[in-house]
Amino acid sequence: MNEAAITLDGWYALHDFRSMDWVSWKLVSAEEREAATKEFIAFLEDLNKDTGSNAFYSIIGQKADFMIMTLRETPEELNEIETKFAKLAIADFTIPTYSYVSVVELSNYLAGKSDEDPYQNPHVRARLYPELPKSKYVCFYPMDKKREGNDNWYMLSMEDRKKLMYDHGLIGRSYAGKIKQIITGSVGLDDHEWGVTLFSDDMLQFKKIVYEMRFDEVSARYGEFGEFLVGNLLDNEKLEKLLAI
Amino acid sequence: MNEAAITLDGWYALHDFRSMDWVSWKLVSAEEREAATKEFIAFLEDLNKDTGSNAFYSIIGQKADFMIMTLRETPEELNEIETKFAKLAIADFTIPTYSYVSVVELSNYLAGKSDEDPYQNPHVRARLYPELPKSKYVCFYPMDKKREGNDNWYMLSMEDRKKLMYDHGLIGRSYAGKIKQIITGSVGLDDHEWGVTLFSDDMLQFKKIVYEMRFDEVSARYGEFGEFLVGNLLDNEKLEKLLAI
Amino acid sequence: MNEAAITLDGWYALHDFRSMDWVSWKLVSAEEREAATKEFIAFLEDLNKDTGSNAFYSIIGQKADFMIMTLRETPEELNEIETKFAKLAIADFTIPTYSYVSVVELSNYLAGKSDEDPYQNPHVRARLYPELPKSKYVCFYPMDKKREGNDNWYMLSMEDRKKLMYDHGLIGRSYAGKIKQIITGSVGLDDHEWGVTLFSDDMLQFKKIVYEMRFDEVSARYGEFGEFLVGNLLDNEKLEKLLAI
Amino acid sequence: MNEAAITLDGWYALHDFRSMDWVSWKLVSAEEREAATKEFIAFLEDLNKDTGSNAFYSIIGQKADFMIMTLRETPEELNEIETKFAKLAIADFTIPTYSYVSVVELSNYLAGKSDEDPYQNPHVRARLYPELPKSKYVCFYPMDKKREGNDNWYMLSMEDRKKLMYDHGLIGRSYAGKIKQIITGSVGLDDHEWGVTLFSDDMLQFKKIVYEMRFDEVSARYGEFGEFLVGNLLDNEKLEKLLAI
Amino acid sequence: MNEAAITLDGWYALHDFRSMDWVSWKLVSAEEREAATKEFIAFLEDLNKDTGSNAFYSIIGQKADFMIMTLRETPEELNEIETKFAKLAIADFTIPTYSYVSVVELSNYLAGKSDEDPYQNPHVRARLYPELPKSKYVCFYPMDKKREGNDNWYMLSMEDRKKLMYDHGLIGRSYAGKIKQIITGSVGLDDHEWGVTLFSDDMLQFKKIVYEMRFDEVSARYGEFGEFLVGNLLDNEKLEKLLAI
Repeated sequence: MNEAAITLDGWYALHDFRSMDWVSWKLVSAEEREAATKEFIAFLEDLNKDTGSNAFYSIIGQKADFMIMTLRETPEELNEIETKFAKLAIADFTIPTYSYVSVVELSNYLAGKSDEDPYQNPHVRARLYPELPKSKYVCFYPMDKKREGNDNWYMLSMEDRKKLMYDHGLIGRSYAGKIKQIITGSVGLDDHEWGVTLFSDDMLQFKKIVYEMRFDEVSARYGEFGEFLVGNLLDNEKLEKLLAI
Repeated sequence: MNEAAITLDGWYALHDFRSMDWVSWKLVSAEEREAATKEFIAFLEDLNKDTGSNAFYSIIGQKADFMIMTLRETPEELNEIETKFAKLAIADFTIPTYSYVSVVELSNYLAGKSDEDPYQNPHVRARLYPELPKSKYVCFYPMDKKREGNDNWYMLSMEDRKKLMYDHGLIGRSYAGKIKQIITGSVGLDDHEWGVTLFSDDMLQFKKIVYEMRFDEVSARYGEFGEFLVGNLLDNEKLEKLLAI
Repeated sequence: MNEAAITLDGWYALHDFRSMDWVSWKLVSAEEREAATKEFIAFLEDLNKDTGSNAFYSIIGQKADFMIMTLRETPEELNEIETKFAKLAIADFTIPTYSYVSVVELSNYLAGKSDEDPYQNPHVRARLYPELPKSKYVCFYPMDKKREGNDNWYMLSMEDRKKLMYDHGLIGRSYAGKIKQIITGSVGLDDHEWGVTLFSDDMLQFKKIVYEMRFDEVSARYGEFGEFLVGNLLDNEKLEKLLAI
Repeated sequence: MNEAAITLDGWYALHDFRSMDWVSWKLVSAEEREAATKEFIAFLEDLNKDTGSNAFYSIIGQKADFMIMTLRETPEELNEIETKFAKLAIADFTIPTYSYVSVVELSNYLAGKSDEDPYQNPHVRARLYPELPKSKYVCFYPMDKKREGNDNWYMLSMEDRKKLMYDHGLIGRSYAGKIKQIITGSVGLDDHEWGVTLFSDDMLQFKKIVYEMRFDEVSARYGEFGEFLVGNLLDNEKLEKLLAI
Repeated sequence: MNEAAITLDGWYALHDFRSMDWVSWKLVSAEEREAATKEFIAFLEDLNKDTGSNAFYSIIGQKADFMIMTLRETPEELNEIETKFAKLAIADFTIPTYSYVSVVELSNYLAGKSDEDPYQNPHVRARLYPELPKSKYVCFYPMDKKREGNDNWYMLSMEDRKKLMYDHGLIGRSYAGKIKQIITGSVGLDDHEWGVTLFSDDMLQFKKIVYEMRFDEVSARYGEFGEFLVGNLLDNEKLEKLLAI
């Protein structure tokens, strides 16, 4: 097997973005809204009882009103969560705007050689099965590696890619403590090759890291970026306030 | 005739992706939902009585809620299945989200020379008129071969293409037993040149094979990919559970 | 005038693709549906009384349920047909999905030199003002000639283009008897430069001709293709069956 | 200031394309339709009382049912016309499908050197503040000059651009008497760099001029084209006929 | 850290574009419309009480009817403004059409070397925390720096970029007094890398500056532009007139 194609794969991920249909939400009675909100909060709390991890953020701008991100052991669970949400009362007042299917992934570019089973390494496990943080802000974007003319990532040698990714990783590491980054692979699963989910208590760090990396050859020559979505952490209280009319 | 353009063609294929309109589905009575579900299940069971083959999967994420894939002897039958579905009660609660028209195809790149009529060869027939498996997971994506500047598949010699496809095929064969792959040709029939439908009992295999192939020159330099959709096998019981409110 | 830009132009063409709004169609009474169907059939039969020609096909997949293709002497007539359709009862149950405006065209690449007025030549007239066949299948797609870097059709000399088109035409001619092809020009009229409408009694021929041509330099280096739509011939009986609930 | 960037600018232009919502239009009473039609005609006649010029055409195909093109002295007037239209009864039965904001423009490529104020030159004024003709047909398309690799219009010297535009202009002039062309600049105002509005009593001339120009280097190497919309002249009588149920 | 990637960042920005749903707006009573208009005006006036700045313009053409641009200290405030708007009565009669999330930004290309904290420099502060002007016209567009083949901004040396930006800035400065320009960075926050908001009392200046800059190498070779939206200043009186039926 092509060494470059070896990845370590953890939990399955679903990013689900939705907007509120405020017009119909306002049309129903205060009691109905209250019941739907309670049921929604119970659903979100139930998510935290499963094996896996979850993140819930409001989204800025018209792309969505909120994002539910779920990490689970199996694809079936992702489908079940979707279906369970669809059957909630709140779902009737939401409009699906974007979703992304992927798997938490560690590439082998930075891996050391070892005989141990990496899936037994606790440091590896912590990254493949991560607890999503409760940071104030989230940023999600999908991306690809370019395959255009002379800028074709997949035609580079493993050695060249390893060197480039090492330098790229140095930038990432310089943001340690400021940003937590979850890379999910989606080759064969969704329209781009990777999803990137960033968490931080300072939204400016999203701008700083992505901008700094853009001057790095990996992004400058080989990066192709999809849409960017950013948002603010939601908890029960904030959700109730968001949905209160 | 251009040797490269010779393909063996089997059953016509329609991939039909749909989302549920949950809001209106919830609005009707439990009896109406039950009747519509039963009628839908009867329709799906009837599909299996025709000559051809069928696959029925739920889809993860917002691209669709389910996919009905049908293989048939004639284009008329594909249209009839669509129309028959449209007249079901369940259809009134679904939203069409994507479809793909193609024909099961074997390229001649890997063919040996022979005087026999390939359409009489039972190995060939088994691939042109396949029984779709009941694997746990499905992956569908359409694709093209690139025609851009120096990366123009269609300007390569037959010899070069044969060599490249041989190496490409080796990767595919290394997944034998893990993935069943149905290639359908859609040049002249739909927006891309081919559709690829993968079946597996391990969804990670979709990611692994597509990623590994991406480093192979056929994909790296010449592959262009449309959208990717993945899903979980549906049977009557799971369908009833999916549709139960 | 640039010799390359001389074309012979015949009837104006409108390809009109529409889907049924099955939900509302089912909502009205059987009498209303019957009356609307009859009125629709009368409209289609009236089309055949005009000078021009018409084709009516169901379309496979979600892109449309049917296509009405009309050839007429003037742009005004195309607009009138659209408006007349819009006022039919059936129109209220259809959703416009795609349309294309063009003119039946013969390029001068293959023309011999002659002093005669080509518009008086009966062979030319038969191609500029064609009777659309009642073949079992139709295929429509729009296309452009590429203008990218070194692959710029419009920067080639007339001599080079003539040579390339001659070879390209040989492929087309090898399908004589199997496919009837109507080329319509749409430079200045719609979003692509040409529309191609193919008719055949064997849908596989669409796949074979387009695929074989793709290896020819005219398509391989210079062809850019829009969306492809295929369908089955509709007559009154089939239309009634399609619309019957 | 960069000499190439000097343009003469005349009236502001708004092209407004709309489709009829025939289903709801049919639902209201004949009296309501008659009143709305009268009010619409009065609005169109009022447009002709303003300083500026107007054109009103039906559009062929599904892109729109009609286009209202208005030229005015200020951006405020364009907004006022939009708002006035929105408040008409007919507006409730229309669906906006496309619009374009631009300014009538003369480039300086063909200008002679002179000390006179061009805005006082009556020939220039007639082109900057044109009376739109009542030709039988209209064609509108937006366009850009390419900036890709070696085909970068904006990196050419002024001298080269002048030479290329001179040759390009010769083609345009050969259509004098057959086509009236209004060029409107939209750099900084809308998504493309220019809008082109052609008027003719022979729709084929749109196809001929755009096709002939496509072989000219200005278009062949540097032209990028948006969507094309064509239509037939509407007057009160034709409008009444169009809207009559 | 890559020197090129250092920016000074000020207020967070949300550009929110919306169209009126005129059909439903006309359906409600004059009292309801009056109350909704008053509430909307109160909301707009409240915006001006916050720390930050705001702009309110009507938009020409079908892309939107109006834009609310808000600058605030935190991402949370942008979300709160959105939610507050969604709960207004007027919101039920609007359709979201486009939005943009970014941060007021000063690049370091033109910065002098100094030991002072730029965030304490009043000239810098005035640009990072600007009072948006009440100019008659606004223009908004997002943009990227190209990364294609030899035209890759992010692969240039800092020196080359500084030189190019210096020349580019000279054009900008020549419009001082005619145009006020707010650059907002959106790398990592929204789909393009920057948003540009121009204010002027002469809409032609938008066309002139963007066109002149297009011949400058920074734009000619490296600029990629998204959609352009232009509009007219709205005040309470104009808003009331706009919304009056």
